[in-house]
Amino acid sequence: MRLITYTLGGGAPRFGAVAGDRVVDVAALAAAHGADVPSDLLSVVQAGPDTWDRLRTLLASASPSDAAHALADVGLRAPLRPGKVVGIGLNYVEHVEESSRSLDTAKELPDRPVLFGKPATAVTGHGQPILHNGDLTRQLDWECELAVVIGRTAFRVAEDDAWDHIFGYSIMNDISARDQRRSGQWFFSKGQDSYCPFGPAVVTADEIADPLDLDVSLRVNGETKQKSNTRHMLFRIPRLIADITSGMTLEPGDVISTGSPSGVGAGMVPPQFLWPGDLVEATVEGIGTLANPVVDAR
Amino acid sequence: MRLITYTLGGGAPRFGAVAGDRVVDVAALAAAHGADVPSDLLSVVQAGPDTWDRLRTLLASASPSDAAHALADVGLRAPLRPGKVVGIGLNYVEHVEESSRSLDTAKELPDRPVLFGKPATAVTGHGQPILHNGDLTRQLDWECELAVVIGRTAFRVAEDDAWDHIFGYSIMNDISARDQRRSGQWFFSKGQDSYCPFGPAVVTADEIADPLDLDVSLRVNGETKQKSNTRHMLFRIPRLIADITSGMTLEPGDVISTGSPSGVGAGMVPPQFLWPGDLVEATVEGIGTLANPVVDAR
Repeated sequence: MRLITYTLGGGAPRFGAVAGDRVVDVAALAAAHGADVPSDLLSVVQAGPDTWDRLRTLLASASPSDAAHALADVGLRAPLRPGKVVGIGLNYVEHVEESSRSLDTAKELPDRPVLFGKPATAVTGHGQPILHNGDLTRQLDWECELAVVIGRTAFRVAEDDAWDHIFGYSIMNDISARDQRRSGQWFFSKGQDSYCPFGPAVVTADEIADPLDLDVSLRVNGETKQKSNTRHMLFRIPRLIADITSGMTLEPGDVISTGSPSGVGAGMVPPQFLWPGDLVEATVEGIGTLANPVVDAR
Repeated sequence: MRLITYTLGGGAPRFGAVAGDRVVDVAALAAAHGADVPSDLLSVVQAGPDTWDRLRTLLASASPSDAAHALADVGLRAPLRPGKVVGIGLNYVEHVEESSRSLDTAKELPDRPVLFGKPATAVTGHGQPILHNGDLTRQLDWECELAVVIGRTAFRVAEDDAWDHIFGYSIMNDISARDQRRSGQWFFSKGQDSYCPFGPAVVTADEIADPLDLDVSLRVNGETKQKSNTRHMLFRIPRLIADITSGMTLEPGDVISTGSPSGVGAGMVPPQFLWPGDLVEATVEGIGTLANPVVDAR
């Protein structure tokens, strides 16, 4: 399933599923079939596997015409609001190298995953603006990442069991104001409003054959800046889940943003950053493209 | 008002108000008076000032005997589950000094607040255990802090207006596994389950005459480790709110933990840390004492 949160003509956000160039409204479809399915994605994720199956069955049934829209006609929002976003720093070898050159990080490969947090208030959706406040930053940077959406509560999960806790996958653009690190802490530099574009859809795990072999890329104004593949992750998804949950419960709807390959703006010579008027497009194979305009928000 | 979340005889958490040595159950009191007040603290905070006034009026009315319990008979939980916890590092001068000696932070006073995040899954209540996992840490440390509970959505709030956005105050014990910093990031070291004791109550802002003049102290097994006053904060509450909200929306129920004075375990010579069997008690004047046992959780 390819699940979205969308708006139509300025109305309230609604829960939908994408099939080709059509969006099916889940609440309308459920009403037509008398089905009992929550009307937002987070509630579906939290409700567990029986509900996921019910939704899958529902989406396979015929949809009345008033339950479907052209994908081109709807606006997108973040698919859900995570309880927490756990970011992974320095998780691609070449990015560790460029960061040590241009930022304040170590040259050595980390021996444990580098974990940081982004608050839910930073999350925004496909097509929505990344806020550029020139009074706060002149170093706004991009990072295209595969996002893992947790489906089942996870605490002290072994690597072998980690996959069972995943609901699906999406894309995160881990935006940073590099000049707003505070005594080395990334929370304010990475956690401001709109610094966590997320989407366009959450694709359920059954539809991603191998999450450890997905091309990831990012373009600014059409020019490719990042291009890699998730196979180059230093700590792979099962290890990340095992490591995080060694001390921290992951809940349904929580998101792990699995780290960025090389090609961030700070690593360019000379450095390149985002400015109002730019368009950033982050693509992950099998999921889609998450595009966001940068707007002046002083 | 002195607001708590409590349990009675192993039942589900309930919303209460403390008056002397009695707890009044808000839902029971509301039912007795036909009053319309939400039955959990987070919903009350989110509902806004009219609801806060309604609750205040309700609590002033006579309570039927079945709505009241002895405080000694109830268990406490965290007063609410925050959307986010924004921690402030290095916000007392002497703590900056001890940190630079014993940890990896700079000697110079920070020129901007040092912000970091703790996830909601780390939050626990008065009397509940702090989990000591000897496989992950041998450097579990304490930090007693005044916690500010946000009452009204705040974005780009001027210092002069900051007080208007505060619902009330509480205590946080900013627990850290010092040996779980990851490439300098504090998220995993400070964000593990149970590393954010919060409570015992949220005291509404009208009952705290001067939040910038409150004694704060912490004891381990009865021995005083920290002893200071909020007047020694480097960045004071209005500055913290203005700074955070320059880029990050604070929502009702979010919590700012305003930083710790000196006297943390890592700064002792030789260093002292928490071990299973210890009892940590964090006190803030006018709010109370937040006590938590440390338990073996391997």
